[in-house]
Amino acid sequence: MPTLYLLPVTLSDVDPRRVLPAYNLEVAARLRHFIVENVRTARRFLKKCDPATDIDALTFQELNGHTPPASIPSLLAPMERGEDMGVMSEAGCPAIADPGSQVVAIAQQRGYKVVPLTGPSSILLSLMASGFNGQGFTFHGYLPIEQSARDKALRGMEADSRNSGRTHIFIETPYRNAKLLESLLRTLQPSTQLCIGRDITSPEGESILTRSVADWRRHKPTLDKVPTIFLIHSRS
Amino acid sequence: MPTLYLLPVTLSDVDPRRVLPAYNLEVAARLRHFIVENVRTARRFLKKCDPATDIDALTFQELNGHTPPASIPSLLAPMERGEDMGVMSEAGCPAIADPGSQVVAIAQQRGYKVVPLTGPSSILLSLMASGFNGQGFTFHGYLPIEQSARDKALRGMEADSRNSGRTHIFIETPYRNAKLLESLLRTLQPSTQLCIGRDITSPEGESILTRSVADWRRHKPTLDKVPTIFLIHSRS
Repeated sequence: MPTLYLLPVTLSDVDPRRVLPAYNLEVAARLRHFIVENVRTARRFLKKCDPATDIDALTFQELNGHTPPASIPSLLAPMERGEDMGVMSEAGCPAIADPGSQVVAIAQQRGYKVVPLTGPSSILLSLMASGFNGQGFTFHGYLPIEQSARDKALRGMEADSRNSGRTHIFIETPYRNAKLLESLLRTLQPSTQLCIGRDITSPEGESILTRSVADWRRHKPTLDKVPTIFLIHSRS
Repeated sequence: MPTLYLLPVTLSDVDPRRVLPAYNLEVAARLRHFIVENVRTARRFLKKCDPATDIDALTFQELNGHTPPASIPSLLAPMERGEDMGVMSEAGCPAIADPGSQVVAIAQQRGYKVVPLTGPSSILLSLMASGFNGQGFTFHGYLPIEQSARDKALRGMEADSRNSGRTHIFIETPYRNAKLLESLLRTLQPSTQLCIGRDITSPEGESILTRSVADWRRHKPTLDKVPTIFLIHSRS
């Protein structure tokens, strides 16, 4: 039975050996067929893992927002011939916040073995470093863009956190970070704790800071166009 | 400013190099002071990472369910003297589902640098391999033990998944796995998808399977006393 390997890639511009187990690089070096979010990024990543890799001997098929859903099952054709495949997203862990999960679902339906490998996730790393409850949490992906819907979502999270103790986690596209921060500081209670994780795993740029909303209002951070993740927690 | 490193450990009985980046072992080798969930497990882990380690030159303080909350701030005493420290739990990522988050919260309050390192998480790995929605999910930790409260929680998750598309994730202590499985197969709708992840990262034992509740009823798995994680997803 062939295996579908889920291969995390780096989150930031960093040596893969800093954030990936040596075993992942061994598995990646054995595979000949890849399903990837972006071919150029995937080739660059494999070259960085092993400059001696013969990239032209590998096959890459893209799975991203532009892929017609009807064509997704055919991406697994090499597995029908008994060959292992690898899935890689553009950053971090495949199938966590990208279309990779659709091809994993098909592999599960067909009874193929699915093996996820360890790698960096900004969700998990920021949660570890936040000091917030890691025994109950929700990841929301992106919040609504429209202001009143977004404010309502934020107030809902704050209320749920106060009642259930749960941590709430969400992301934003980098160029909208400043706007989201404004919403957070305007909408949330002063005593609510807000953790802002920036450029996670970057040797120079990483910063994961937990402060109260009141503190963030006094010392407003500049969120440049850097990948950022936000976590909130509120005590009753 | 001293740094508090959050050091993941192995989840299963496996060579640390299979699931941890080489960088983690370098950081661990530099540290002299550790806050750990269990001293014996921590010493064994560090010896496995580097048999040449002089374990007796290191200090270990325990932080677990038996630690009086009032004594937690004093665990960071080496950092007051400017020394870096490491936090390790018994399995997987510190501060995710263990008391480590309390000491991280204090480090954040004091303005220490907190640096999480990449490592295996059964939550994230099972979510990747489930084929379920990774753009919105909730981790619940342990469910209520009492049957009617548990059934109510399960029906609530199923309804939320149908409405929001969210994946719901939870764990159980191994000796109660069989009982939880009974609840799941009795309570959930036949069309609800259930992923069961067992012995994650174990080279021989790992199994992460997604099937409908109807399929699981027909082919009931034997859940031995192995660490298991459960994920459910329901389409409207």
